[in-house]
Amino acid sequence: MSDLPKRVEISEEGPREGFQFEKGPIATERKIALIDALSGSGLKQIQIVSFVNPKNVPGMADADHVVEGITPQPGVAYTALWLNEKGFERALTHGNRLALAGTIQLCASEKFLKRNQNRTAAEQLAGQHAIVEKYKANGVAVERGSIMAAFGCNFEGDIPVERVVILVGQILDVAREHGVSLKYVTLADTMAWATPLSIKRVVGALRERWTDLDIALHLHDTRGMAVANAYAGLEMGVTRFDSSVAGLGGCPFAGHTGAAGNVCSEDLVFLCHEMGIETGIDLDALIECARLAEDVVGHPLPGSVMKGGTLAKYRA
Amino acid sequence: MSDLPKRVEISEEGPREGFQFEKGPIATERKIALIDALSGSGLKQIQIVSFVNPKNVPGMADADHVVEGITPQPGVAYTALWLNEKGFERALTHGNRLALAGTIQLCASEKFLKRNQNRTAAEQLAGQHAIVEKYKANGVAVERGSIMAAFGCNFEGDIPVERVVILVGQILDVAREHGVSLKYVTLADTMAWATPLSIKRVVGALRERWTDLDIALHLHDTRGMAVANAYAGLEMGVTRFDSSVAGLGGCPFAGHTGAAGNVCSEDLVFLCHEMGIETGIDLDALIECARLAEDVVGHPLPGSVMKGGTLAKYRA
Repeated sequence: MSDLPKRVEISEEGPREGFQFEKGPIATERKIALIDALSGSGLKQIQIVSFVNPKNVPGMADADHVVEGITPQPGVAYTALWLNEKGFERALTHGNRLALAGTIQLCASEKFLKRNQNRTAAEQLAGQHAIVEKYKANGVAVERGSIMAAFGCNFEGDIPVERVVILVGQILDVAREHGVSLKYVTLADTMAWATPLSIKRVVGALRERWTDLDIALHLHDTRGMAVANAYAGLEMGVTRFDSSVAGLGGCPFAGHTGAAGNVCSEDLVFLCHEMGIETGIDLDALIECARLAEDVVGHPLPGSVMKGGTLAKYRA
Repeated sequence: MSDLPKRVEISEEGPREGFQFEKGPIATERKIALIDALSGSGLKQIQIVSFVNPKNVPGMADADHVVEGITPQPGVAYTALWLNEKGFERALTHGNRLALAGTIQLCASEKFLKRNQNRTAAEQLAGQHAIVEKYKANGVAVERGSIMAAFGCNFEGDIPVERVVILVGQILDVAREHGVSLKYVTLADTMAWATPLSIKRVVGALRERWTDLDIALHLHDTRGMAVANAYAGLEMGVTRFDSSVAGLGGCPFAGHTGAAGNVCSEDLVFLCHEMGIETGIDLDALIECARLAEDVVGHPLPGSVMKGGTLAKYRA
């Protein structure tokens, strides 16, 4: 027994993170095979594609075929990412297969925002009002808030805790104004600046202000801190995590760019199970998926537990 | 500011861990080059060789030449490992270069003990009395206690917290009986069974019994938990850690055997510095050592920060 949560929800982002990052090309049927394998591991949510411009992200050129090709399993929500109206409209055409949900998203770094979207913070906020109306008009539930670069930014540096508190307040205001009810707000460590200490400070400041706010963490492992950051989240009562099978999403062998992937799914599940936290996931099945992921991308991936093994056989 | 320790002591074990593990061969002068580079990083203690049977550990056949070949730096303690009397006698011949210190060591797993040393727990304890006398007779200070497999064992399974408490009591009794004063007791997660939760439970139980006991952690990263485990130790006030530059000591690309190495030194230093904990180590210099280590062993090593980079350039 411990004071850690009894159960967490893990949202698998490996297919989307990995196939948009890998130099590839990876055959569409191999992407589908990995997603179908993940569907049998007990995961309840899997982000499988992003609808983005194939000129910018060639690995997502076959996104429509991937969505059409998978064998959906009952009880598994298949999600997609989009970055603009055009992407959203493509997602809408798959409304029968995808679990479409809208996000109110703000970026904590004004410099990153300016650079990537050529927008000011005020323009970004105004844009969220428009997008929520668009979701509502299309019957898409708005369930999630999200803060990009919540812990730091390569273009702006450290992000003050107070700024994150203000942005979460803005997200909740937008939701209230449009009569939508968010299930949770995700804090994304987009550029891997977080430490366990900053996780605790930011989550603590948000809990201080909004006692019942459900917080999710999206943790990149570029500097090897992701499992420790997840643990710090668990200690703060966080029960929702994004993760990436085998650590897909970055290649640790590509020089200084590092492993850009999310916290490795099976390493996170191992951490949870060993501390008595339920995930609903079959760890052995997930490890098989991680090995399949290495085979699909054709090079080693950073996950540890798939190499080191679980402890089950020693306890048997 | 935080309630974490203000400063920690890091003992580098990469050369010893790595050169005994790597399939090699690695030229003696390359080993020396890595040790000399580490000497310039601000590390105050570096374990450079083990004196063991070269038939069992070919990578340590040149241990005497390595010790003789390095350029010792003032303020750096160069240490060695030995497993029996013969090894200790070899170490004694380098008393002018090595910082020799004796350890009272017990193994928490009786099955591992039986298998590796063909001894019972009682025989092991009796043996420690003899070895302390031998150290004293040779003028070697006995400064450290150590518990192997303190968190779990591949041959025995989980280790009860109470057993670790009993073993630490036995170590302290041996020390007292022979009039030696230990600086600290190391808990070794020899086979990578620890989680942040078990770190907190074991350290907490020891602190409950011996309020002022100085505890060190020796954490293997086979299952990707080492940084999180170190963080849990820091939260419990642990200020001494063993670590291994670049994660030397295991190859993550060798199938299921996993990364057997210690927690990666530069990842641990990054964790500490980012949380405001001093190490006295120049992180950039240590990262250069990690890159040199990859060059010396001739394959990628598991460290993350050497690939992902530090945050200093973004803050500048």
